[in-house]
Amino acid sequence: MRTVVVTDPPRADVEDAETLGTYGVATVHEALGRVGYLGPELRPAWPGARIGGTAVTALCWPGDNLMIHVAVEQCRPGDVLVVATNSPSTDGLFGELFATALAHRGVRGVVLGCGVRDVAELRGMGFPAWSRAVSAQGSVKATAGAVNVPVTVGGQVVSPGDVVVADDDGVMVVPRHDVDRALDASRARVEKETATRAAFEAGELGLDRYGLRDRLKDSGISYVSHEEYVR
Amino acid sequence: MRTVVVTDPPRADVEDAETLGTYGVATVHEALGRVGYLGPELRPAWPGARIGGTAVTALCWPGDNLMIHVAVEQCRPGDVLVVATNSPSTDGLFGELFATALAHRGVRGVVLGCGVRDVAELRGMGFPAWSRAVSAQGSVKATAGAVNVPVTVGGQVVSPGDVVVADDDGVMVVPRHDVDRALDASRARVEKETATRAAFEAGELGLDRYGLRDRLKDSGISYVSHEEYVR
Amino acid sequence: MRTVVVTDPPRADVEDAETLGTYGVATVHEALGRVGYLGPELRPAWPGARIGGTAVTALCWPGDNLMIHVAVEQCRPGDVLVVATNSPSTDGLFGELFATALAHRGVRGVVLGCGVRDVAELRGMGFPAWSRAVSAQGSVKATAGAVNVPVTVGGQVVSPGDVVVADDDGVMVVPRHDVDRALDASRARVEKETATRAAFEAGELGLDRYGLRDRLKDSGISYVSHEEYVR
Amino acid sequence: MRTVVVTDPPRADVEDAETLGTYGVATVHEALGRVGYLGPELRPAWPGARIGGTAVTALCWPGDNLMIHVAVEQCRPGDVLVVATNSPSTDGLFGELFATALAHRGVRGVVLGCGVRDVAELRGMGFPAWSRAVSAQGSVKATAGAVNVPVTVGGQVVSPGDVVVADDDGVMVVPRHDVDRALDASRARVEKETATRAAFEAGELGLDRYGLRDRLKDSGISYVSHEEYVR
Amino acid sequence: MRTVVVTDPPRADVEDAETLGTYGVATVHEALGRVGYLGPELRPAWPGARIGGTAVTALCWPGDNLMIHVAVEQCRPGDVLVVATNSPSTDGLFGELFATALAHRGVRGVVLGCGVRDVAELRGMGFPAWSRAVSAQGSVKATAGAVNVPVTVGGQVVSPGDVVVADDDGVMVVPRHDVDRALDASRARVEKETATRAAFEAGELGLDRYGLRDRLKDSGISYVSHEEYVR
Amino acid sequence: MRTVVVTDPPRADVEDAETLGTYGVATVHEALGRVGYLGPELRPAWPGARIGGTAVTALCWPGDNLMIHVAVEQCRPGDVLVVATNSPSTDGLFGELFATALAHRGVRGVVLGCGVRDVAELRGMGFPAWSRAVSAQGSVKATAGAVNVPVTVGGQVVSPGDVVVADDDGVMVVPRHDVDRALDASRARVEKETATRAAFEAGELGLDRYGLRDRLKDSGISYVSHEEYVR
Repeated sequence: MRTVVVTDPPRADVEDAETLGTYGVATVHEALGRVGYLGPELRPAWPGARIGGTAVTALCWPGDNLMIHVAVEQCRPGDVLVVATNSPSTDGLFGELFATALAHRGVRGVVLGCGVRDVAELRGMGFPAWSRAVSAQGSVKATAGAVNVPVTVGGQVVSPGDVVVADDDGVMVVPRHDVDRALDASRARVEKETATRAAFEAGELGLDRYGLRDRLKDSGISYVSHEEYVR
Repeated sequence: MRTVVVTDPPRADVEDAETLGTYGVATVHEALGRVGYLGPELRPAWPGARIGGTAVTALCWPGDNLMIHVAVEQCRPGDVLVVATNSPSTDGLFGELFATALAHRGVRGVVLGCGVRDVAELRGMGFPAWSRAVSAQGSVKATAGAVNVPVTVGGQVVSPGDVVVADDDGVMVVPRHDVDRALDASRARVEKETATRAAFEAGELGLDRYGLRDRLKDSGISYVSHEEYVR
Repeated sequence: MRTVVVTDPPRADVEDAETLGTYGVATVHEALGRVGYLGPELRPAWPGARIGGTAVTALCWPGDNLMIHVAVEQCRPGDVLVVATNSPSTDGLFGELFATALAHRGVRGVVLGCGVRDVAELRGMGFPAWSRAVSAQGSVKATAGAVNVPVTVGGQVVSPGDVVVADDDGVMVVPRHDVDRALDASRARVEKETATRAAFEAGELGLDRYGLRDRLKDSGISYVSHEEYVR
Repeated sequence: MRTVVVTDPPRADVEDAETLGTYGVATVHEALGRVGYLGPELRPAWPGARIGGTAVTALCWPGDNLMIHVAVEQCRPGDVLVVATNSPSTDGLFGELFATALAHRGVRGVVLGCGVRDVAELRGMGFPAWSRAVSAQGSVKATAGAVNVPVTVGGQVVSPGDVVVADDDGVMVVPRHDVDRALDASRARVEKETATRAAFEAGELGLDRYGLRDRLKDSGISYVSHEEYVR
Repeated sequence: MRTVVVTDPPRADVEDAETLGTYGVATVHEALGRVGYLGPELRPAWPGARIGGTAVTALCWPGDNLMIHVAVEQCRPGDVLVVATNSPSTDGLFGELFATALAHRGVRGVVLGCGVRDVAELRGMGFPAWSRAVSAQGSVKATAGAVNVPVTVGGQVVSPGDVVVADDDGVMVVPRHDVDRALDASRARVEKETATRAAFEAGELGLDRYGLRDRLKDSGISYVSHEEYVR
Repeated sequence: MRTVVVTDPPRADVEDAETLGTYGVATVHEALGRVGYLGPELRPAWPGARIGGTAVTALCWPGDNLMIHVAVEQCRPGDVLVVATNSPSTDGLFGELFATALAHRGVRGVVLGCGVRDVAELRGMGFPAWSRAVSAQGSVKATAGAVNVPVTVGGQVVSPGDVVVADDDGVMVVPRHDVDRALDASRARVEKETATRAAFEAGELGLDRYGLRDRLKDSGISYVSHEEYVR
């Protein structure tokens, strides 16, 4: 591992990141073509938050939060801190004191490929966190890692300056160069979903709205009554 | 897999299903002789719901929600949609738009052997969902499956028309032909539990109430003081 | 397994246990030198509780809660019941009726190496429970185990009379002979954390407060601009 | 649970079961339309066995092998014993002594929804076993279950008399009424695979052999050179 | 954690440890009353080894093998090295070079609560290892832990000097003060098993040999023909 | 997802890839600075293989192997096929027929982020495979993905043309631009390990060879006799 701290990486526009945050994970993920989702193992520490921000990344040794201290200094308003460990670990590398420091710097939340602790305090502060585990297991500050290099969390590469969107459905990443496309496609998708919602509330079926009945026929699906089926 | 849609399967009585719902999973499960529980991996998307309804089943290919669209059309008031995939998958095959369509049809909730998404929206709508995962990972509509055939979720066979009961303890199935027995046994169990609760509130011990002291003796359990034990 | 019930084991002071409870798991765990945490798999059945109490232990056969009935009789005000199974099991050995009996005896909560059920009812009663799973799967009362012997849950040995602290971060154990040290160290840590919190709110960095900048240099970490890094 | 032992259930033809065994799991599973596979968690205790036989089923309480003793008596030459537990358990309910008894009766192997032990001895005897775990954890003989009722293992219902096929790829079930279809379809598939193998050995591509190139075009897949792609 | 190296802990007799090794895990575990098994997650790196030895313990920080280097010096002929990490980790803290050093000192094998690497080389050397994972992920030598203190692996406390028995069924621990009882009980169990094996080979049933038919009756188990059952 | 097939990506030198293969995963991983390991969940389908080759990548929909057919055509002698799915899946997308086609093209092996089947046949052919699961579950050929785009497997990005090294310890990736460094560093490490092995065989301790005794002192580790410790 190259033990390096990259300063001032270019970031996506903070307002764009916030706008993507308002759309939410499921919408932006679909809009982008179903890519960028960090998977079902990353869960919110408390329910109800929805954020969008620009990534600052930290790569830590398992059980060691030295590089989070380094990363705090690199954070600016509108950022989201993304912490990866270089091997699987559930230890709670992040808690209330880090959240206090990040909140002071205008950071929107934290995404942890490992564990989080002080869950009650984070909920009380309203500081959002997503993690693979809740764990009180504490850490040392002994081994060097890296800050603001590309990291992998939940099978997705997060590069510094990318947009991170997170809510109760989990976390996704939008590469910096894809933000404009994500904004346009999300806006279009929200409009389409609004129309579909109204149609469904009025009783229309997805089979008709999406024109699926022909596909069913081509697939060889047959409709049979219960009586025929049990015969 | 036989790619078939079975229409109008006979269902358990909807009011019976609702009544079982009011008893809750733990009570009905015990009343039936400790069978029918779909296991600890099926969790509610949001806490506090408790439902009972009649099963409509959908069997999907992993990452593909085509058959849920087909299943919606087969749903009636009082139903619960039960979705299985034919191999392990956590993808979020179900979200807010499906919930809107099902709510319009009077469906009570959804049980997913895979993942769910739009968790915040479902909580806002009050539409209950139980699933193996929360995942924003979207799906295609490409491959045929089946609707209203018996499916297996959480190690239990759910047949169309069976009663599904779900609450914060998870999900259980009551086979259609067992509903009367379940109602009687649940009612009896609730009465017994009410009496036991009052006895326990008054300080009676389970050891006495259930007559377990003799069994302890037969089992060879001995009581020793701490002093004897550490010697 | 020696099938024995140990009566009246010496317990840590109940007020000391409560005081440790107010400090919370993460603080006491750090104060003691990062030992005693039962790991991330033990989760609260409902959020928001924080307790400290003295352990009464039960060792059960999987799928069998006979020994919990035996353990109830051994519980006193200020105790926390700790249930282990002698092989991995998620079955819901504990529910509302047990909670009613324990609440009557002044017990503060329950920690289960297996599953819990009646989650909605426990939340309604305000009776706290931590467990490896939520499961409605019921149990028999057939096979002897032990009460008030040392048990292992989440990789930690819990002996009767030890202090158990639990909150939204999970569960930890403080050996009885370590309670004084835990109290002193936790008090000191809380003071230190209060000062650090104030410093972080004022914008100080952990790098400076903990004197980590020299360690970074020794570790060979270098700071490079984004431009240098991508070259 | 109905505590019952069903005697002399009708079985599929033993020679048919053996023939299906020679085809192997992957082939029969594909031939039947990709149904009946018990999933990737059921692994062989030792590599290299391949069997087909008729199911005798046992439903046990976790940590309790009483019903396996009952099931042994119901076994005949050509059978495969299938053991389920009514809640998740890894305990080693089956070992060398049971294998000795079953081998004496002409049983072909065992499939365990729980754990197996005496792995070295089973390998030495050449008695095949598939299980969810290897575990030395022993069991009691205390609680009643059932023999020769339908059980669920790995998400599949196995009924007594069904054909069980197992090899290094895992385990599958062929319902008794589907055996003829499975035989015909497997034979046809083996012939087809033999021809495909020869074609592939001669350098033909699946794209051509299965006529997939048109599907690629319809799917909107485009071929681009590396130079175009990185631009 | 107290960072200490305990020198020359008293050990069980090495020949006794070897004798227990020849009996194997399942036998000794049963003989002792079904206690001491480290669970199904600890698997051999290669099949076929069976050992017994006296424990030297090391407690490591995740991703850090400093304390294994310390532990090597404490090992003597007949020992088994037991490595725990103070939080969950799969990293491969142990490989061929450590095995070379331990083999030189007459150590019988290693048990790792974390991961192992160089599996092909260990198999080639014939040096046995049991671990929770195979992982090439390497480690630093940065953070202090402890040697020859009691550690917990797989839910069991292993104290220095205890006997460790391991084979293809996994790993178990026999507390030093229980070795005599384990030897006697294992010898008796082997004799009993030999007789049972002969009886089973001759066709006797467990139902008769263990006198279980009465228990079945008491349990309310009924025998019904298939015809009656399906009615 | 961009549904694209990239043709003729530049590859690392095939002989270099083979040379790295001879060093093995643990050595190259250490030599590169402990990066690039795909984690402990990727296991060999059969033991004993050790390969190095250049990556051709395929990104598949879960349960769908269409893109593997496309990828076969892009493979050349010395390649290793790396298959990812865009959401978690254990289905057996790859088996004997694909292996036959790849062997014909001189491909060295396959790495699957999903499942593999026909394990006995692959072992018989000597075609190496690493996968997250063994599963007979078959797949459709319905949904487009991509070939020769960067994919993530086991938390590592694999780009087409990178070197893949795999053996009984798992799988690692060496980025194409790092191959020279990997060769040099691996060669140096092998020499160093050879010397260390000889030293360890002669009884030298790691504590002395790596100069760790001072670090122990600085860490505050103390040596105490057993008698002192238990006091």
